[in-house]
Amino acid sequence: MAREQFRFSHPLRVRWAEADMQGVVFNAHYLLYFDVGITEYWRALADGDPQRLREIFNHLYVVKSTVEYRAPAHFDDELEVCVRTERIGRSSLTVQFEIHRGSEHLISGENVYVHAHEGASSPVPGAFRELLREFEIVKPQE
Amino acid sequence: MAREQFRFSHPLRVRWAEADMQGVVFNAHYLLYFDVGITEYWRALADGDPQRLREIFNHLYVVKSTVEYRAPAHFDDELEVCVRTERIGRSSLTVQFEIHRGSEHLISGENVYVHAHEGASSPVPGAFRELLREFEIVKPQE
Amino acid sequence: MAREQFRFSHPLRVRWAEADMQGVVFNAHYLLYFDVGITEYWRALADGDPQRLREIFNHLYVVKSTVEYRAPAHFDDELEVCVRTERIGRSSLTVQFEIHRGSEHLISGENVYVHAHEGASSPVPGAFRELLREFEIVKPQE
Amino acid sequence: MAREQFRFSHPLRVRWAEADMQGVVFNAHYLLYFDVGITEYWRALADGDPQRLREIFNHLYVVKSTVEYRAPAHFDDELEVCVRTERIGRSSLTVQFEIHRGSEHLISGENVYVHAHEGASSPVPGAFRELLREFEIVKPQE
Repeated sequence: MAREQFRFSHPLRVRWAEADMQGVVFNAHYLLYFDVGITEYWRALADGDPQRLREIFNHLYVVKSTVEYRAPAHFDDELEVCVRTERIGRSSLTVQFEIHRGSEHLISGENVYVHAHEGASSPVPGAFRELLREFEIVKPQE
Repeated sequence: MAREQFRFSHPLRVRWAEADMQGVVFNAHYLLYFDVGITEYWRALADGDPQRLREIFNHLYVVKSTVEYRAPAHFDDELEVCVRTERIGRSSLTVQFEIHRGSEHLISGENVYVHAHEGASSPVPGAFRELLREFEIVKPQE
Repeated sequence: MAREQFRFSHPLRVRWAEADMQGVVFNAHYLLYFDVGITEYWRALADGDPQRLREIFNHLYVVKSTVEYRAPAHFDDELEVCVRTERIGRSSLTVQFEIHRGSEHLISGENVYVHAHEGASSPVPGAFRELLREFEIVKPQE
Repeated sequence: MAREQFRFSHPLRVRWAEADMQGVVFNAHYLLYFDVGITEYWRALADGDPQRLREIFNHLYVVKSTVEYRAPAHFDDELEVCVRTERIGRSSLTVQFEIHRGSEHLISGENVYVHAHEGASSPVPGAFRELLREFEIVKPQE
Protein backbone atom coordinates (compact mmCIF):
# COMPACT_ATOMS: atom_id res chain seq x y z
CA MET A 1 0.00 0.00 0.00
CA ALA A 2 1.33 3.43 -0.79
CA ARG A 3 2.28 5.82 1.99
CA GLU A 4 -0.33 8.26 0.67
CA GLN A 5 -3.17 5.90 1.53
CA PHE A 6 -2.64 6.56 5.21
CA ARG A 7 -4.40 9.61 6.55
CA PHE A 8 -2.67 9.21 9.90
CA SER A 9 0.94 8.81 10.95
CA HIS A 10 2.88 9.33 14.16
CA PRO A 11 6.60 10.18 14.40
CA LEU A 12 8.83 8.05 16.60
CA ARG A 13 12.57 8.05 17.30
CA VAL A 14 14.27 4.65 17.81
CA ARG A 15 15.67 4.36 21.35
CA TRP A 16 19.12 2.95 22.12
CA ALA A 17 17.63 0.09 24.13
CA GLU A 18 15.49 -0.97 21.16
CA ALA A 19 18.41 -1.84 18.86
CA ASP A 20 20.02 -5.23 19.27
CA MET A 21 23.55 -6.58 18.82
CA GLN A 22 23.19 -6.42 15.04
CA GLY A 23 22.41 -2.72 15.37
CA VAL A 24 18.83 -3.17 14.21
CA VAL A 25 15.53 -2.83 16.06
CA PHE A 26 14.57 -6.11 17.74
CA ASN A 27 11.58 -7.59 15.89
CA ALA A 28 9.11 -7.57 18.82
CA HIS A 29 9.54 -3.82 19.21
CA TYR A 30 7.73 -3.17 15.92
CA LEU A 31 4.56 -4.49 17.57
CA LEU A 32 5.27 -2.01 20.36
CA TYR A 33 5.59 0.74 17.74
CA PHE A 34 2.25 -0.35 16.24
CA ASP A 35 0.76 0.02 19.73
CA VAL A 36 2.19 3.52 20.13
CA GLY A 37 0.73 4.31 16.70
CA ILE A 38 -2.76 3.00 17.44
CA THR A 39 -2.82 4.90 20.76
CA GLU A 40 -2.15 8.14 18.93
CA TYR A 41 -4.58 7.21 16.17
CA TRP A 42 -7.33 6.59 18.72
CA ARG A 43 -6.38 9.80 20.51
CA ALA A 44 -6.87 11.65 17.23
CA LEU A 45 -10.23 9.91 16.79
CA ALA A 46 -11.25 10.74 20.37
CA ASP A 47 -10.34 14.32 19.56
CA GLY A 48 -8.37 14.70 22.77
CA ASP A 49 -11.21 13.55 25.05
CA PRO A 50 -9.46 11.27 27.60
CA GLN A 51 -12.73 9.69 28.76
CA ARG A 52 -13.61 8.68 25.22
CA LEU A 53 -10.05 7.45 24.62
CA ARG A 54 -10.21 5.29 27.75
CA GLU A 55 -13.50 3.74 26.58
CA ILE A 56 -11.94 2.79 23.26
CA PHE A 57 -8.96 1.27 25.04
CA ASN A 58 -10.95 -0.64 27.60
CA HIS A 59 -12.95 -2.60 25.07
CA LEU A 60 -10.54 -3.48 22.28
CA TYR A 61 -8.28 -6.53 22.46
CA VAL A 62 -5.76 -7.69 19.87
CA VAL A 63 -6.55 -11.20 18.64
CA LYS A 64 -4.10 -11.46 15.73
CA SER A 65 -0.93 -9.69 14.56
CA THR A 66 1.08 -9.95 11.40
CA VAL A 67 4.40 -8.20 10.76
CA GLU A 68 6.50 -8.17 7.59
CA TYR A 69 10.05 -6.96 8.03
CA ARG A 70 11.16 -5.48 4.70
CA ALA A 71 14.17 -3.51 5.93
CA PRO A 72 15.49 -2.84 9.43
CA ALA A 73 15.31 0.36 11.44
CA HIS A 74 18.40 1.43 13.38
CA PHE A 75 19.16 3.30 16.57
CA ASP A 76 18.24 6.98 16.38
CA ASP A 77 16.24 6.61 13.16
CA GLU A 78 13.28 8.93 12.83
CA LEU A 79 10.36 6.77 11.82
CA GLU A 80 6.76 7.34 10.89
CA VAL A 81 4.17 4.84 12.11
CA CYS A 82 1.27 4.91 9.64
CA VAL A 83 -2.12 3.63 10.85
CA ARG A 84 -5.32 2.92 8.96
CA THR A 85 -8.53 1.09 9.82
CA GLU A 86 -8.98 -1.26 6.90
CA ARG A 87 -12.17 -3.01 7.86
CA ILE A 88 -14.94 -2.59 10.45
CA GLY A 89 -16.67 -5.89 11.19
CA ARG A 90 -19.58 -6.50 13.49
CA SER A 91 -17.40 -6.86 16.57
CA SER A 92 -13.89 -6.50 15.16
CA LEU A 93 -11.56 -4.01 13.51
CA THR A 94 -8.72 -4.75 11.12
CA VAL A 95 -6.00 -2.12 11.34
CA GLN A 96 -3.09 -1.78 8.94
CA PHE A 97 0.28 -0.39 9.90
CA GLU A 98 3.33 0.68 7.97
CA ILE A 99 6.60 2.02 9.27
CA HIS A 100 8.53 4.38 7.04
CA ARG A 101 11.90 6.12 7.31
CA GLY A 102 11.74 9.02 4.92
CA SER A 103 10.92 7.51 1.54
CA GLU A 104 11.83 3.97 2.62
CA HIS A 105 9.08 1.55 3.54
CA LEU A 106 10.55 -0.66 6.31
CA ILE A 107 7.70 -2.57 7.93
CA SER A 108 4.14 -3.65 7.11
CA GLY A 109 1.71 -5.18 9.53
CA GLU A 110 -1.84 -5.73 10.62
CA ASN A 111 -3.64 -6.12 13.93
CA VAL A 112 -7.13 -7.53 14.33
CA TYR A 113 -8.90 -6.09 17.38
CA VAL A 114 -12.04 -7.55 18.88
CA HIS A 115 -14.51 -5.33 20.71
CA ALA A 116 -15.41 -7.05 23.97
CA HIS A 117 -17.53 -6.35 27.01
CA GLU A 118 -17.08 -8.31 30.24
CA GLY A 119 -15.13 -11.02 28.49
CA ALA A 120 -17.48 -11.61 25.56
CA SER A 121 -17.19 -10.09 22.10
CA SER A 122 -19.76 -7.36 21.55
CA PRO A 123 -20.77 -5.18 18.60
CA VAL A 124 -18.55 -2.19 17.80
CA PRO A 125 -20.70 0.69 19.16
CA GLY A 126 -22.43 2.81 16.54
CA ALA A 127 -20.82 6.05 17.68
CA PHE A 128 -17.29 4.62 17.46
CA ARG A 129 -18.14 3.07 14.08
CA GLU A 130 -19.23 6.50 12.85
CA LEU A 131 -16.06 8.13 14.15
CA LEU A 132 -13.96 5.57 12.28
CA ARG A 133 -15.97 5.95 9.07
CA GLU A 134 -15.65 9.70 9.14
CA PHE A 135 -11.92 9.41 9.77
CA GLU A 136 -11.27 6.84 7.07
CA ILE A 137 -12.79 5.79 3.81
CA VAL A 138 -13.49 2.25 4.90
CA LYS A 139 -15.65 -0.53 3.59
CA PRO A 140 -18.17 -1.43 6.33
CA GLN A 141 -18.97 -5.11 6.38
CA GLU A 142 -21.22 -7.44 8.37
CA MET B 1 -1.74 -28.19 16.10
CA ALA B 2 -1.67 -30.45 19.10
CA ARG B 3 0.86 -29.91 21.86
CA GLU B 4 2.22 -33.42 21.20
CA GLN B 5 3.42 -32.45 17.74
CA PHE B 6 6.19 -30.35 19.26
CA ARG B 7 9.33 -32.24 20.12
CA PHE B 8 10.79 -29.15 21.79
CA SER B 9 9.52 -26.79 24.45
CA HIS B 10 11.12 -24.34 26.84
CA PRO B 11 9.69 -23.27 30.24
CA LEU B 12 9.32 -19.58 30.98
CA ARG B 13 7.91 -17.63 33.92
CA VAL B 14 6.03 -14.37 33.15
CA ARG B 15 7.84 -11.39 34.69
CA TRP B 16 6.05 -8.59 36.54
CA ALA B 17 7.20 -6.01 33.98
CA GLU B 18 5.66 -8.04 31.15
CA ALA B 19 2.05 -7.74 32.36
CA ASP B 20 0.16 -4.59 31.52
CA MET B 21 -2.57 -2.57 33.23
CA GLN B 22 -5.16 -5.20 32.32
CA GLY B 23 -3.03 -7.76 34.16
CA VAL B 24 -2.20 -9.64 30.95
CA VAL B 25 1.06 -10.01 29.05
CA PHE B 26 1.51 -7.14 26.57
CA ASN B 27 1.10 -8.54 23.04
CA ALA B 28 4.60 -7.70 21.74
CA HIS B 29 6.17 -9.76 24.51
CA TYR B 30 4.89 -12.98 22.94
CA LEU B 31 7.28 -12.35 20.03
CA LEU B 32 10.00 -11.94 22.66
CA TYR B 33 8.96 -15.30 24.14
CA PHE B 34 9.15 -16.85 20.65
CA ASP B 35 12.69 -15.49 20.42
CA VAL B 36 13.64 -16.99 23.78
CA GLY B 37 12.15 -20.26 22.54
CA ILE B 38 14.02 -20.30 19.21
CA THR B 39 17.29 -19.50 21.00
CA GLU B 40 16.88 -22.55 23.21
CA TYR B 41 15.71 -24.64 20.25
CA TRP B 42 18.82 -23.71 18.29
CA ARG B 43 20.95 -24.33 21.37
CA ALA B 44 19.48 -27.84 21.55
CA LEU B 45 20.23 -28.31 17.82
CA ALA B 46 23.78 -26.99 18.26
CA ASP B 47 24.11 -29.52 21.06
CA GLY B 48 25.65 -26.94 23.37
CA ASP B 49 28.39 -25.88 20.96
CA PRO B 50 28.48 -22.06 21.32
CA GLN B 51 30.42 -21.58 18.07
CA ARG B 52 27.81 -23.52 16.10
CA LEU B 53 25.02 -21.64 17.89
CA ARG B 54 26.59 -18.30 17.00
CA GLU B 55 26.82 -19.33 13.32
CA ILE B 56 23.12 -20.17 13.27
CA PHE B 57 22.29 -16.84 14.90
CA ASN B 58 24.50 -14.75 12.66
CA HIS B 59 22.85 -15.86 9.45
CA LEU B 60 19.15 -16.07 10.18
CA TYR B 61 16.87 -13.03 9.98
CA VAL B 62 13.14 -12.88 10.67
CA VAL B 63 11.22 -11.65 7.62
CA LYS B 64 7.66 -12.33 8.76
CA SER B 65 5.83 -12.98 12.03
CA THR B 66 2.27 -14.01 12.79
CA VAL B 67 0.77 -14.23 16.26
CA GLU B 68 -2.69 -15.43 17.26
CA TYR B 69 -3.75 -14.52 20.79
CA ARG B 70 -6.25 -17.17 21.93
CA ALA B 71 -6.10 -16.51 25.67
CA PRO B 72 -3.90 -14.20 27.74
CA ALA B 73 -1.02 -15.13 30.01
CA HIS B 74 -0.77 -13.39 33.39
CA PHE B 75 1.99 -12.31 35.75
CA ASP B 76 3.80 -15.25 37.33
CA ASP B 77 2.29 -17.83 34.99
CA GLU B 78 4.53 -20.75 34.16
CA LEU B 79 4.43 -21.12 30.41
CA GLU B 80 5.85 -23.53 27.89
CA VAL B 81 7.11 -22.13 24.59
CA CYS B 82 6.82 -24.91 21.99
CA VAL B 83 8.98 -24.64 18.86
CA ARG B 84 8.94 -26.65 15.64
CA THR B 85 10.54 -26.16 12.23
CA GLU B 86 7.64 -26.64 9.87
CA ARG B 87 9.35 -26.13 6.53
CA ILE B 88 12.90 -25.89 5.22
CA GLY B 89 13.04 -23.93 1.98
CA ARG B 90 16.09 -23.23 -0.19
CA SER B 91 17.09 -20.18 1.82
CA SER B 92 14.34 -19.91 4.42
CA LEU B 93 12.87 -21.66 7.43
CA THR B 94 9.28 -21.54 8.65
CA VAL B 95 9.08 -22.07 12.40
CA GLN B 96 5.88 -22.64 14.35
CA PHE B 97 5.40 -21.60 17.94
CA GLU B 98 2.78 -22.32 20.55
CA ILE B 99 2.57 -21.09 24.10
CA HIS B 100 0.82 -23.29 26.63
CA ARG B 101 -0.05 -22.93 30.31
CA GLY B 102 -0.59 -26.43 31.58
CA SER B 103 -3.29 -27.88 29.37
CA GLU B 104 -4.39 -24.48 28.02
CA HIS B 105 -3.22 -23.39 24.60
CA LEU B 106 -2.80 -19.59 24.83
CA ILE B 107 -0.85 -18.44 21.78
CA SER B 108 -0.02 -19.68 18.26
CA GLY B 109 2.47 -18.11 15.93
CA GLU B 110 4.92 -18.46 13.12
CA ASN B 111 8.19 -16.82 12.14
CA VAL B 112 9.76 -17.05 8.70
CA TYR B 113 13.57 -16.78 8.84
CA VAL B 114 15.76 -16.12 5.83
CA HIS B 115 19.32 -17.42 5.73
CA ALA B 116 21.54 -14.59 4.57
CA HIS B 117 25.21 -13.98 3.98
CA GLU B 118 26.63 -10.47 3.69
CA GLY B 119 23.21 -8.98 3.13
CA ALA B 120 22.01 -11.39 0.43
CA SER B 121 19.86 -14.46 0.95
CA SER B 122 21.88 -17.66 0.64
CA PRO B 123 21.04 -21.36 0.72
CA VAL B 124 20.50 -22.96 4.11
CA PRO B 125 23.81 -24.86 4.59
CA GLY B 126 23.58 -28.62 4.12
CA ALA B 127 24.89 -29.41 7.60
CA PHE B 128 22.31 -27.18 9.29
CA ARG B 129 19.59 -28.62 7.06
CA GLU B 130 20.60 -32.12 8.17
CA LEU B 131 20.57 -31.11 11.82
CA LEU B 132 17.05 -29.76 11.43
CA ARG B 133 15.85 -32.85 9.56
CA GLU B 134 17.21 -35.16 12.19
CA PHE B 135 15.61 -33.08 14.92
CA GLU B 136 12.20 -32.82 13.27
CA ILE B 137 10.13 -34.79 10.87
CA VAL B 138 9.86 -32.01 8.32
CA LYS B 139 8.89 -31.84 4.70
CA PRO B 140 11.95 -30.54 2.77
CA GLN B 141 10.98 -28.44 -0.18
CA GLU B 142 12.83 -26.62 -2.99
CA MET C 1 30.01 -8.21 49.79
CA ALA C 2 31.09 -11.74 49.15
CA ARG C 3 28.91 -14.09 47.13
CA GLU C 4 28.72 -16.40 50.14
CA GLN C 5 26.83 -13.83 52.19
CA PHE C 6 23.74 -14.36 50.07
CA ARG C 7 21.55 -17.24 51.12
CA PHE C 8 19.39 -16.80 48.03
CA SER C 9 20.14 -16.61 44.34
CA HIS C 10 18.15 -17.13 41.17
CA PRO C 11 19.57 -18.22 37.79
CA LEU C 12 18.77 -16.16 34.72
CA ARG C 13 19.85 -16.38 31.07
CA VAL C 14 20.41 -13.08 29.19
CA ARG C 15 17.92 -12.75 26.32
CA TRP C 16 18.91 -11.54 22.85
CA ALA C 17 16.63 -8.51 23.13
CA GLU C 18 18.36 -7.42 26.34
CA ALA C 19 21.78 -6.84 24.78
CA ASP C 20 22.39 -3.55 23.02
CA MET C 21 24.48 -2.46 20.04
CA GLN C 22 27.65 -2.74 22.11
CA GLY C 23 26.77 -6.38 22.79
CA VAL C 24 26.19 -5.73 26.49
CA VAL C 25 23.02 -5.77 28.57
CA PHE C 26 21.32 -2.37 28.53
CA ASN C 27 21.69 -0.77 31.97
CA ALA C 28 17.97 -0.51 32.82
CA HIS C 29 17.57 -4.27 32.41
CA TYR C 30 19.62 -4.92 35.55
CA LEU C 31 16.78 -3.33 37.55
CA LEU C 32 14.47 -5.75 35.73
CA TYR C 33 16.77 -8.61 36.78
CA PHE C 34 16.63 -7.36 40.38
CA ASP C 35 12.85 -7.48 40.11
CA VAL C 36 12.91 -11.05 38.80
CA GLY C 37 15.24 -11.88 41.71
CA ILE C 38 13.07 -10.30 44.41
CA THR C 39 9.98 -12.06 43.02
CA GLU C 40 11.68 -15.42 43.40
CA TYR C 41 13.08 -14.44 46.79
CA TRP C 42 9.59 -13.53 48.02
CA ARG C 43 8.23 -16.72 46.49
CA ALA C 44 10.81 -18.68 48.51
CA LEU C 45 9.77 -16.74 51.63
CA ALA C 46 6.08 -17.35 50.92
CA ASP C 47 6.98 -21.00 50.61
CA GLY C 48 5.00 -21.37 47.40
CA ASP C 49 1.75 -19.97 48.84
CA PRO C 50 0.45 -17.72 46.01
CA GLN C 51 -1.96 -15.87 48.30
CA ARG C 52 0.84 -14.94 50.70
CA LEU C 53 3.08 -13.97 47.75
CA ARG C 54 0.36 -11.68 46.38
CA GLU C 55 0.01 -9.96 49.76
CA ILE C 56 3.73 -9.25 49.87
CA PHE C 57 3.62 -7.86 46.35
CA ASN C 58 0.55 -5.73 46.86
CA HIS C 59 2.02 -3.76 49.72
CA LEU C 60 5.66 -3.15 48.83
CA TYR C 61 6.73 -0.25 46.62
CA VAL C 62 10.26 0.63 45.52
CA VAL C 63 11.23 4.13 46.65
CA LYS C 64 14.93 4.12 45.80
CA SER C 65 17.29 2.10 43.60
CA THR C 66 21.05 2.09 43.26
CA VAL C 67 23.00 0.11 40.67
CA GLU C 68 26.77 -0.20 40.27
CA TYR C 69 27.92 -1.61 36.97
CA ARG C 70 31.28 -3.30 37.56
CA ALA C 71 31.43 -5.41 34.41
CA PRO C 72 28.89 -6.03 31.66
CA ALA C 73 26.81 -9.13 31.03
CA HIS C 74 26.43 -10.32 27.44
CA PHE C 75 23.82 -12.11 25.37
CA ASP C 76 23.32 -15.72 26.42
CA ASP C 77 25.29 -15.35 29.67
CA GLU C 78 24.07 -17.48 32.53
CA LEU C 79 23.78 -15.17 35.51
CA GLU C 80 22.93 -15.54 39.15
CA VAL C 81 20.84 -12.82 40.78
CA CYS C 82 21.71 -12.81 44.50
CA VAL C 83 19.18 -11.24 46.89
CA ARG C 84 19.43 -10.41 50.57
CA THR C 85 17.33 -8.32 52.96
CA GLU C 86 19.88 -6.08 54.59
CA ARG C 87 17.68 -4.07 56.91
CA ILE C 88 14.10 -4.21 58.20
CA GLY C 89 12.87 -0.78 59.24
CA ARG C 90 9.53 0.12 60.77
CA SER C 91 7.82 0.46 57.40
CA SER C 92 10.64 -0.20 54.94
CA LEU C 93 13.01 -2.90 53.73
CA THR C 94 16.47 -2.45 52.29
CA VAL C 95 17.35 -5.24 49.88
CA GLN C 96 20.79 -5.86 48.41
CA PHE C 97 21.37 -7.43 45.03
CA GLU C 98 24.41 -8.78 43.27
CA ILE C 99 24.65 -10.29 39.82
CA HIS C 100 27.36 -12.85 39.21
CA ARG C 101 28.53 -14.80 36.16
CA GLY C 102 30.39 -17.78 37.54
CA SER C 103 33.12 -16.36 39.75
CA GLU C 104 32.80 -12.84 38.30
CA HIS C 105 30.89 -10.21 40.23
CA LEU C 106 29.26 -8.00 37.57
CA ILE C 107 26.64 -5.84 39.27
CA SER C 108 25.82 -4.56 42.77
CA GLY C 109 22.66 -2.78 43.76
CA GLU C 110 20.13 -1.94 46.37
CA ASN C 111 16.40 -1.31 46.44
CA VAL C 112 14.54 0.34 49.29
CA TYR C 113 10.92 -0.85 49.53
CA VAL C 114 8.24 0.87 51.56
CA HIS C 115 5.35 -1.09 52.99
CA ALA C 116 2.17 0.82 52.22
CA HIS C 117 -1.53 0.39 52.73
CA GLU C 118 -4.08 2.43 50.79
CA GLY C 119 -1.44 4.92 49.73
CA ALA C 120 0.11 5.56 53.15
CA SER C 121 3.21 3.89 54.55
CA SER C 122 2.35 1.32 57.19
CA PRO C 123 4.38 -0.91 59.51
CA VAL C 124 5.90 -4.07 58.05
CA PRO C 125 3.51 -6.75 59.45
CA GLY C 126 4.93 -8.84 62.28
CA ALA C 127 4.45 -12.13 60.46
CA PHE C 128 6.32 -10.95 57.39
CA ARG C 129 9.04 -9.48 59.61
CA GLU C 130 9.42 -12.88 61.29
CA LEU C 131 9.60 -14.66 57.94
CA LEU C 132 12.37 -12.33 56.82
CA ARG C 133 14.29 -12.71 60.09
CA GLU C 134 14.12 -16.47 59.92
CA PHE C 135 15.27 -16.42 56.32
CA GLU C 136 18.16 -14.00 56.89
CA ILE C 137 20.43 -13.01 59.68
CA VAL C 138 19.39 -9.38 59.67
CA LYS C 139 19.78 -6.52 62.07
CA PRO C 140 16.25 -5.31 63.00
CA GLN C 141 16.15 -1.58 63.50
CA GLU C 142 13.54 1.03 64.45
CA MET D 1 16.77 20.65 42.85
CA ALA D 2 14.29 23.03 41.32
CA ARG D 3 12.96 22.43 37.83
CA GLU D 4 14.39 25.80 36.79
CA GLN D 5 17.96 24.63 37.35
CA PHE D 6 17.74 22.41 34.30
CA ARG D 7 18.54 24.11 31.03
CA PHE D 8 17.52 21.02 29.11
CA SER D 9 14.43 18.85 29.11
CA HIS D 10 12.87 16.40 26.68
CA PRO D 11 9.15 15.55 26.43
CA LEU D 12 8.07 11.91 26.56
CA ARG D 13 4.68 10.19 26.56
CA VAL D 14 4.30 7.04 28.70
CA ARG D 15 3.56 4.02 26.52
CA TRP D 16 0.90 1.41 27.36
CA ALA D 17 3.53 -1.34 27.61
CA GLU D 18 5.47 0.67 30.20
CA ALA D 19 2.74 0.66 32.85
CA ASP D 20 2.41 -2.39 35.06
CA MET D 21 -0.48 -4.16 36.75
CA GLN D 22 -0.71 -1.40 39.36
CA GLY D 23 -1.17 1.09 36.52
CA VAL D 24 2.16 2.77 37.20
CA VAL D 25 5.37 2.86 35.17
CA PHE D 26 7.58 -0.13 36.04
CA ASN D 27 10.63 1.13 37.96
CA ALA D 28 13.32 0.01 35.48
CA HIS D 29 11.71 2.09 32.74
CA TYR D 30 12.74 5.32 34.45
CA LEU D 31 16.36 4.40 33.70
CA LEU D 32 15.25 3.93 30.10
CA TYR D 33 13.68 7.40 30.21
CA PHE D 34 16.96 8.80 31.57
CA ASP D 35 18.69 7.20 28.59
CA VAL D 36 16.25 8.76 26.15
CA GLY D 37 16.90 12.08 27.91
CA ILE D 38 20.69 11.86 27.78
CA THR D 39 20.55 10.91 24.09
CA GLU D 40 18.60 14.07 23.31
CA TYR D 41 20.83 16.12 25.63
CA TRP D 42 23.93 14.91 23.81
CA ARG D 43 22.21 15.51 20.49
CA ALA D 44 21.60 19.10 21.56
CA LEU D 45 25.27 19.37 22.57
CA ALA D 46 26.42 17.84 19.28
CA ASP D 47 24.25 20.44 17.60
CA GLY D 48 22.71 17.87 15.28
CA ASP D 49 26.05 16.54 13.99
CA PRO D 50 25.50 12.73 13.90
CA GLN D 51 29.25 11.99 13.68
CA ARG D 52 29.94 14.01 16.82
CA LEU D 53 26.95 12.41 18.58
CA ARG D 54 28.24 8.94 17.72
CA GLU D 55 31.68 9.79 19.15
CA ILE D 56 30.11 10.88 22.43
CA PHE D 57 28.07 7.68 22.56
CA ASN D 58 30.91 5.36 21.69
CA HIS D 59 33.10 6.44 24.59
CA LEU D 60 30.75 6.92 27.54
CA TYR D 61 29.69 4.04 29.77
CA VAL D 62 27.38 4.18 32.77
CA VAL D 63 29.12 2.96 35.93
CA LYS D 64 26.54 3.92 38.53
CA SER D 65 22.85 4.82 38.63
CA THR D 66 20.63 6.11 41.40
CA VAL D 67 16.86 6.58 41.13
CA GLU D 68 14.47 8.03 43.70
CA TYR D 69 10.81 7.35 43.06
CA ARG D 70 8.82 10.20 44.64
CA ALA D 71 5.52 9.66 42.83
CA PRO D 72 4.54 7.32 40.01
CA ALA D 73 3.91 8.14 36.37
CA HIS D 74 0.93 6.51 34.66
CA PHE D 75 0.02 5.36 31.17
CA ASP D 76 -0.38 8.22 28.72
CA ASP D 77 1.19 10.80 31.04
CA GLU D 78 3.13 13.54 29.31
CA LEU D 79 6.45 13.76 31.11
CA GLU D 80 9.49 15.98 30.90
CA VAL D 81 12.88 14.37 31.36
CA CYS D 82 15.24 17.05 32.71
CA VAL D 83 18.99 16.52 32.23
CA ARG D 84 21.96 18.39 33.65
CA THR D 85 25.69 17.66 33.81
CA GLU D 86 26.50 18.22 37.45
CA ARG D 87 30.21 17.48 37.50
CA ILE D 88 32.98 16.95 34.95
CA GLY D 89 35.79 14.84 36.40
CA ARG D 90 39.04 13.85 34.72
CA SER D 91 37.51 10.82 33.02
CA SER D 92 33.94 10.84 34.28
CA LEU D 93 30.71 12.82 34.14
CA THR D 94 27.99 12.99 36.77
CA VAL D 95 24.60 13.68 35.20
CA GLN D 96 21.46 14.55 37.14
CA PHE D 97 17.98 13.69 35.97
CA GLU D 98 14.52 14.68 37.06
CA ILE D 99 11.18 13.61 35.65
CA HIS D 100 8.29 16.01 35.97
CA ARG D 101 4.60 15.86 35.05
CA GLY D 102 3.47 19.42 34.81
CA SER D 103 4.28 20.98 38.17
CA GLU D 104 4.75 17.60 39.89
CA HIS D 105 8.26 16.30 40.48
CA LEU D 106 7.99 12.50 40.15
CA ILE D 107 11.50 11.09 39.85
CA SER D 108 15.08 12.14 40.69
CA GLY D 109 18.20 10.32 39.63
CA GLU D 110 21.84 10.39 38.72
CA ASN D 111 24.07 8.50 36.33
CA VAL D 112 27.86 8.48 36.50
CA TYR D 113 29.45 7.96 33.08
CA VAL D 114 33.08 7.02 32.53
CA HIS D 115 34.88 8.07 29.39
CA ALA D 116 36.72 5.05 28.05
CA HIS D 117 38.87 4.18 25.07
CA GLU D 118 39.54 0.58 24.09
CA GLY D 119 38.40 -0.70 27.45
CA ALA D 120 40.42 1.68 29.65
CA SER D 121 39.16 4.89 31.20
CA SER D 122 40.57 7.93 29.41
CA PRO D 123 40.37 11.70 29.97
CA VAL D 124 37.21 13.47 28.83
CA PRO D 125 38.42 15.15 25.60
CA GLY D 126 38.98 18.91 25.86
CA ALA D 127 36.55 19.75 23.07
CA PHE D 128 33.71 17.78 24.69
CA ARG D 129 34.56 19.29 28.05
CA GLU D 130 34.27 22.75 26.50
CA LEU D 131 30.94 21.91 24.90
CA LEU D 132 29.59 20.76 28.26
CA ARG D 133 30.90 23.87 30.05
CA GLU D 134 29.35 26.18 27.55
CA PHE D 135 26.05 24.33 27.80
CA GLU D 136 25.97 24.23 31.59
CA ILE D 137 27.32 26.23 34.45
CA VAL D 138 29.31 23.40 35.97
CA LYS D 139 32.07 23.15 38.50
CA PRO D 140 35.07 21.47 36.78
CA GLN D 141 37.03 19.32 39.18
CA GLU D 142 40.14 17.12 39.11
